[in-house]
Amino acid sequence: MDLNPDKAFSIEFQPSGLRLILDEPTTLLDAARQAGVMLRADCGGKGICGKCRIQLFSDLVDYPPSLTEESHLDHASIDAGFRLACETIAHKNIKVFIPTDSIIEGQVLQVDGRLRELNIEPSVRRISVSLQPADLKDLRSDLARIKIFLDRDDLSADLNVLRIIPRILRQNQWSADLMVLDQKIIAASAPAKEKTAGLAVDVGSTKVACYLMDLESGKLLAARGTPNPQIAYGEDIMARIAFALQSEQNAKKLQTMLFDAINRTSQTLAREAGIESTQIADVCLVGNTAMHHLFLHLPVDPLAVSPFVPAFNEVLYPKADELGITAMPGCGVYTPPVIAGFVGSDHLAFLLAEGFGEDQRTRLGIDIGTNTEIALQKGVEIVSVSTASGPAFEGAHIRFGMRAAPGAIEHVTLDNNGFAEIQVIGNQEPIGICGSGILDAVAEMRRIGMLNSRGRIVKEFMGVCLDGNGKPYIQLSQGSQPVILSQNDVDQILLAKGAIRAGIDVLMDHLKVHPEEIEEVVIAGAFGTFMLPEHAMRIGMLPELPLDKVHAAGNAAGAGARMMLISKSARARAENLAKQIRYLELTVYPEFPMFYAKGIQS
Amino acid sequence: MDLNPDKAFSIEFQPSGLRLILDEPTTLLDAARQAGVMLRADCGGKGICGKCRIQLFSDLVDYPPSLTEESHLDHASIDAGFRLACETIAHKNIKVFIPTDSIIEGQVLQVDGRLRELNIEPSVRRISVSLQPADLKDLRSDLARIKIFLDRDDLSADLNVLRIIPRILRQNQWSADLMVLDQKIIAASAPAKEKTAGLAVDVGSTKVACYLMDLESGKLLAARGTPNPQIAYGEDIMARIAFALQSEQNAKKLQTMLFDAINRTSQTLAREAGIESTQIADVCLVGNTAMHHLFLHLPVDPLAVSPFVPAFNEVLYPKADELGITAMPGCGVYTPPVIAGFVGSDHLAFLLAEGFGEDQRTRLGIDIGTNTEIALQKGVEIVSVSTASGPAFEGAHIRFGMRAAPGAIEHVTLDNNGFAEIQVIGNQEPIGICGSGILDAVAEMRRIGMLNSRGRIVKEFMGVCLDGNGKPYIQLSQGSQPVILSQNDVDQILLAKGAIRAGIDVLMDHLKVHPEEIEEVVIAGAFGTFMLPEHAMRIGMLPELPLDKVHAAGNAAGAGARMMLISKSARARAENLAKQIRYLELTVYPEFPMFYAKGIQS
Repeated sequence: MDLNPDKAFSIEFQPSGLRLILDEPTTLLDAARQAGVMLRADCGGKGICGKCRIQLFSDLVDYPPSLTEESHLDHASIDAGFRLACETIAHKNIKVFIPTDSIIEGQVLQVDGRLRELNIEPSVRRISVSLQPADLKDLRSDLARIKIFLDRDDLSADLNVLRIIPRILRQNQWSADLMVLDQKIIAASAPAKEKTAGLAVDVGSTKVACYLMDLESGKLLAARGTPNPQIAYGEDIMARIAFALQSEQNAKKLQTMLFDAINRTSQTLAREAGIESTQIADVCLVGNTAMHHLFLHLPVDPLAVSPFVPAFNEVLYPKADELGITAMPGCGVYTPPVIAGFVGSDHLAFLLAEGFGEDQRTRLGIDIGTNTEIALQKGVEIVSVSTASGPAFEGAHIRFGMRAAPGAIEHVTLDNNGFAEIQVIGNQEPIGICGSGILDAVAEMRRIGMLNSRGRIVKEFMGVCLDGNGKPYIQLSQGSQPVILSQNDVDQILLAKGAIRAGIDVLMDHLKVHPEEIEEVVIAGAFGTFMLPEHAMRIGMLPELPLDKVHAAGNAAGAGARMMLISKSARARAENLAKQIRYLELTVYPEFPMFYAKGIQS
Repeated sequence: MDLNPDKAFSIEFQPSGLRLILDEPTTLLDAARQAGVMLRADCGGKGICGKCRIQLFSDLVDYPPSLTEESHLDHASIDAGFRLACETIAHKNIKVFIPTDSIIEGQVLQVDGRLRELNIEPSVRRISVSLQPADLKDLRSDLARIKIFLDRDDLSADLNVLRIIPRILRQNQWSADLMVLDQKIIAASAPAKEKTAGLAVDVGSTKVACYLMDLESGKLLAARGTPNPQIAYGEDIMARIAFALQSEQNAKKLQTMLFDAINRTSQTLAREAGIESTQIADVCLVGNTAMHHLFLHLPVDPLAVSPFVPAFNEVLYPKADELGITAMPGCGVYTPPVIAGFVGSDHLAFLLAEGFGEDQRTRLGIDIGTNTEIALQKGVEIVSVSTASGPAFEGAHIRFGMRAAPGAIEHVTLDNNGFAEIQVIGNQEPIGICGSGILDAVAEMRRIGMLNSRGRIVKEFMGVCLDGNGKPYIQLSQGSQPVILSQNDVDQILLAKGAIRAGIDVLMDHLKVHPEEIEEVVIAGAFGTFMLPEHAMRIGMLPELPLDKVHAAGNAAGAGARMMLISKSARARAENLAKQIRYLELTVYPEFPMFYAKGIQS
């Protein structure tokens, strides 16, 4: 890019110190993206979410606040130089400070998850061969020689491998290491006693969890989560699909970011484990349907408009290098089936990891997110729904909402007057509140009667404050920037939990299950780990059940992906499970509106 | 390439008029190749074959003849400006005339061949679908919808096809045309009532025969042969392999030339048939093992050194676009197995076309070339050998030898004095003699006793002339440049027929077959069509048999390729046949030297 030196100006981002030179007016959000600063923009830069708060160090006269900024920021903040990056246009040298809570990083990433006992039987195995050299009395082809040595007449080989096998054999006294996937030789190399590794990946909208596994022992070599960098183009999937649909280039960009994140993380993991990325001989990848489609370069437009049907829901096993994943040449990427437009292979992996379909217990599996996927098993039937719960439990649409990151209030108790006692991640000054804290706050408000049956904050409590318009809120922390929870925030939570409860109720109605018949509820994800089940029941998100029936599954989708990576029978089970799971579309279920209305109130 | 204008000079080739500008001294053979002039160079430019004869129009003082040129050209020719292109270095402006017999083109290419009755059951079929649109009550994926419409639960689809199917369906009211290969959708397009075509290719060392077939009717749409352009880098395969091994770039060049020739020919065929190349939905390709390996970008070095083992001998079905063949996206190239380092899939196709393995008749299949492949079937056993017969029957190593092209003597009869009566292709002035003519001449010499039992020309015949050294030759035509056949030429023929006969005898010895048990001999190729079986027997190339047992098969390899293109059961038969055929290495057969010695004499 040739800059016009007469118009060039610089933007410096603090505290990272990243600098960018531009020659035309640009919003600070776009500039941050170009500079690689991971600035939050949950709404995708539309001026709605107010999360891209930054502080200007410059003459503020040049940056009068917009109406949007005035609606998101108080006067004191505006005077102190706070603006929204999406609303602020840089046109000359400027220094910008990014507050911690505007940065996408340092989230508490949970890469664990229960891994059930299973036999180590990877699809890809390293096999060493040491052949009799060809001579005029033994003119079998190289491949025939390998088949006879291994006594496997079923073997075939990728064309790319056939192209290199003759040279490898002849340069290594007729020995070689072969990587064999089922009946196919997918890679060949000079003999070496190297570890054979596999990579399991759970691509979430928010984070990408990567697990490097030893394919021979089935042991975890290293694991790491990284934020999904696509988040810079919108917190929710629809914003990203909309971005992808604007141009082929945009779609490509989202894909490239994702591959870069996976490759970067897997390289870090390989380094930690003391191996090379090229020792990765197999990959298993799960994700929601949009991530799955973006990952496989499948068109996402059918996912953007009703009726939201996926292109297909089969297993695919493309080559890693065709997709852009760094691994051993010939390595495949096993992608198990998605279930529906809003029920992905991560849901399948979750249910696999939790043993759905293996017994006939009556149980619920819930993965809470912007879309919450819920499965109900009864006997041999498993029915799944996706409910648009919104991102409230992930901190979005909540004024002080944030992800489970340092500075987030994760637990709240209220005394009888409604004054809060809080627990903050990282034991630091609170800067916001995350899902489990929000759940606590609302449940506690309900417990002490501060929330009436219609979901209104009862103003008579001492702990309730009123804003300039007489609207009630509660203050969760003290100091110059107290974290507060307003009537509007409470409304968001009630809508979210109502959507989840309606999904559960529809499933119970559809399969004729009574709450007391439910033998287990498993809740996936960080929210499931940190939330208090009694609070989820108190606000009516879950039906009333004995507490010991509710279990957190951690990153169960990741656990399922790891199982499929190291075990062929887990893959077979997942493929059967995918056929067993029936998707139910809530919006056409006649009683859904009734359940939803009830869910919001209860 | 930047030319140095101070050193630049031009070479003009006549009669084509092609010009080339160079700035450094270059042999005329290299210059011809660069200019795209198809100059013969059977030995690959080593000064051995003397075929790259050209005539200079320039001051001959600048181009004194080399010793090599003096051994290949007589004084009159040298004085007339004739030189060898491989020996002549151009360093300034020059005009060069290429005589017809030095150009690789205009050969009589035989693209026919017997096509046996078989059911039309192509591997790839066009299937039109017209689906129920997706709605909220019917959320099956696009692929699931296709599977239900076709009532085929076994269907899957290439990832590339899944990427385009959603858009095609939605842009065409949920209709599409699918190309289905066995259980896999390999291509999709907007609905159209187009022909589905297939391409069968027989890649020979000398020529490439292409057949465009209607996959639905099994009918031939158009057929055409083209010279294998690799011939510019050596008439025989070993010269080309040697060229390929010099550098990666050379190997690539040989491949590219071959693909270009196939693509150009298939485009011509498509134009003739009124279709587009992109309607070609399936390709079947056969060839000798070196061509097969070059075609698939497999390493050829193991084919260059003893023990000459192929990389593998399995069916491969790579994508046309990955190889570089122009066809429908998703189209595969079916390549049946090769049998051994010097017995290719063309031999398999020949035996398939002739029904080997389908009955238990005792019969011989012979494809005469530089390497002659011979198969003997007895009961359920089929054994094949490759014998280094040399290119004498293709006109090489024979002073006036040439391919079956206009001007070639194709038949010879001798009167009792040894004077010749000839038949010339194109009824023109003879300029050389081709395989069948050579066979005739030697057989006739034998018949009238002009050749004794040790293969020496008997000088007492009136038709025998003596050269300056007293060596005998016979003159086949009159005029200023008479076509002659020398003792040396006769020796070459006897060596060639001896190698073929030795191959036959080894096979008969190995399978304990007596000549009278042979029920049929099929001879493939142009030579088989034009040669007189009685002459082949008279010189001892074939054992004595009733003449009606010998049949010409025409381009039987091409016929086999066509069968495999349009019939799945022909493919299955070929794959079984490949397992049934046992390769026998002549050079380690203890009695081979004895049979060879006998074969030369008999």
